Amino acid sequence: MKIALDAMGGDFGPPNLVAGAVMALREYPRITKLYLVGDSAKIVAELQKNRCQDTRIEIVPSTQVVEMSDRAVEAVRRKKDSSISRAVDLVKHGQADAVVSAGHTGAAVAACTIKLRTLPGINRPGIAAVLPTETNVFVLIDAGANIDAHPEHLLQYAFMGTVYSRHVLGYKNPTVGLISLGEEDVKGNEMTKEVFKMLKKSSLNFIGNIEGRHLFENPVEVVVCDGFVGNVILKTCESIAVAIFTWLKHELTRTPMRKAGAFLARHAFNAIKEKTNYEEYGGSPLLGVNGICIIAHGSSTPLAVKNALRVAVESIEQQVNPHIVEEIRRYNETTAPLEPALR
Amino acid sequence: MKIALDAMGGDFGPPNLVAGAVMALREYPRITKLYLVGDSAKIVAELQKNRCQDTRIEIVPSTQVVEMSDRAVEAVRRKKDSSISRAVDLVKHGQADAVVSAGHTGAAVAACTIKLRTLPGINRPGIAAVLPTETNVFVLIDAGANIDAHPEHLLQYAFMGTVYSRHVLGYKNPTVGLISLGEEDVKGNEMTKEVFKMLKKSSLNFIGNIEGRHLFENPVEVVVCDGFVGNVILKTCESIAVAIFTWLKHELTRTPMRKAGAFLARHAFNAIKEKTNYEEYGGSPLLGVNGICIIAHGSSTPLAVKNALRVAVESIEQQVNPHIVEEIRRYNETTAPLEPALR
Repeated sequence: MKIALDAMGGDFGPPNLVAGAVMALREYPRITKLYLVGDSAKIVAELQKNRCQDTRIEIVPSTQVVEMSDRAVEAVRRKKDSSISRAVDLVKHGQADAVVSAGHTGAAVAACTIKLRTLPGINRPGIAAVLPTETNVFVLIDAGANIDAHPEHLLQYAFMGTVYSRHVLGYKNPTVGLISLGEEDVKGNEMTKEVFKMLKKSSLNFIGNIEGRHLFENPVEVVVCDGFVGNVILKTCESIAVAIFTWLKHELTRTPMRKAGAFLARHAFNAIKEKTNYEEYGGSPLLGVNGICIIAHGSSTPLAVKNALRVAVESIEQQVNPHIVEEIRRYNETTAPLEPALR
Repeated sequence: MKIALDAMGGDFGPPNLVAGAVMALREYPRITKLYLVGDSAKIVAELQKNRCQDTRIEIVPSTQVVEMSDRAVEAVRRKKDSSISRAVDLVKHGQADAVVSAGHTGAAVAACTIKLRTLPGINRPGIAAVLPTETNVFVLIDAGANIDAHPEHLLQYAFMGTVYSRHVLGYKNPTVGLISLGEEDVKGNEMTKEVFKMLKKSSLNFIGNIEGRHLFENPVEVVVCDGFVGNVILKTCESIAVAIFTWLKHELTRTPMRKAGAFLARHAFNAIKEKTNYEEYGGSPLLGVNGICIIAHGSSTPLAVKNALRVAVESIEQQVNPHIVEEIRRYNETTAPLEPALR
């Protein structure tokens, strides 16, 4: 397997990205080639720091970086030699099987959409984030790729999320819920009301509107929303989990008795912390583009980068794209005579 | 103080609402009159169950109830004798100083907007929810009143949230953040980019875009977003806090040693649980209408209903409406020559 890593993106740049790449190479022998795309001198320096001479690494030089303040599409059009553009090019030209980026999400989405194009029947790609509950996981799609979404995009997300849930997470007939205000059919904004009707007519296992409060109580397997809302949900979840654990730590160290109690119960905290730690998930696939792209967290630690590369390895093995194309084709054939086709 | 309580709304109807009303009457002598609006027979039965003969109670009969499956504006127009309509009428005719409802939020918003009208300079009311952090609280506006918002509505929310934060929560110069994707100026969807420009030109203490992940880390004092996003944030927060504590409970009771630890540290858990318990907050003011309306949680317990009535008492004392009108007037006078006025 050949993977291209944008070695410049993310809040911490080459140090974390290269360290994560080195970890991944040690752990995943299935990676036969790892392209590190970016500033050669910086990448070499980090490889030396990590004492890595793995021959599977190939440095692909690029002179530009998409900054977080850049506009996504503009950045892709103007910065032809940016690390993300070059990394996506490697997939486009068949040199890499997947691309991984922890940089500007919008730029990664734009680069993939422009260079790789979307799958037949898909208008816009969506990020499928996997979130943990106490007993399971669910897919949240779109977690931030498409922030001015139309109803048909959300219908496509429901299909893509279902395929992902079935083929990657192993749910046989995943339940699909639409994020709205109130569970009743009439609740929601103009867009969700439209999407509700489309989902109800589809062959998907649509259970109706769900609210934020149902994400973790009797959760559905596929949560559908637009990228703005999805990104807010994802980041709010991260924020609160961190806030509650920090708060708990302060409260638990306030008296000697609480400290003793916390020590005795430490494995309970660790069990939850481990399962809610985003670093363990590493990255989320950008579904709907004609290729494999994994979006990693902007503030990725080396461990998170390593796990994003693991997600890339798994995605190359799983190959969900043909299944997405097939599902959409079937929908268009059966529903298109009645509804506008998803083209 | 005279308060009208919609005694029929909410997931549990009269039992919880009347029980909460009885608790509030015991605790708040400042309430001189409490109208219980709804099905007289049911209300009387609940009062008897609670052994309450408080003479400050006046039952206002109404024969209809807005169901959760009703469309908001339609419900207000067609169900003239609904408990929420009758309760708002009491405010409209000066018989009550405030109305409290745990029923259909959209119907309460529509009834207040249609019957009480909005304040001068305000197009749409917004719900101001107060959320706790470890060290403080912040206002989230709009938490679900206006789900198809326009940019100028969000600017008005920023003003209303600032007034509330200053006059009720005591922040001198509250910081305002706009929920978006990424902190950079260029990030966001079409609407937030527009709102960003307006906020930047205003006299508000606007610190820029914030993400879900900044809600609880170095939080701002006023968080501005549209009602769809705000409602999702509010309900996601509730959901996760409950999920984490449930999960923790399961982990903490798994072994005798963990149980012992949890017992020693129990005050730490209780401290956080108390501060994150929505029942303690009770209700959120609907700001921007020409009157006082408190929106309580649909699944309000009697304790939550009591606290919603406490919020009503406080709101009657605080009278933020004149301050909102004054702030908007000043904005229009100083900025209107350059910008479209907020009318």
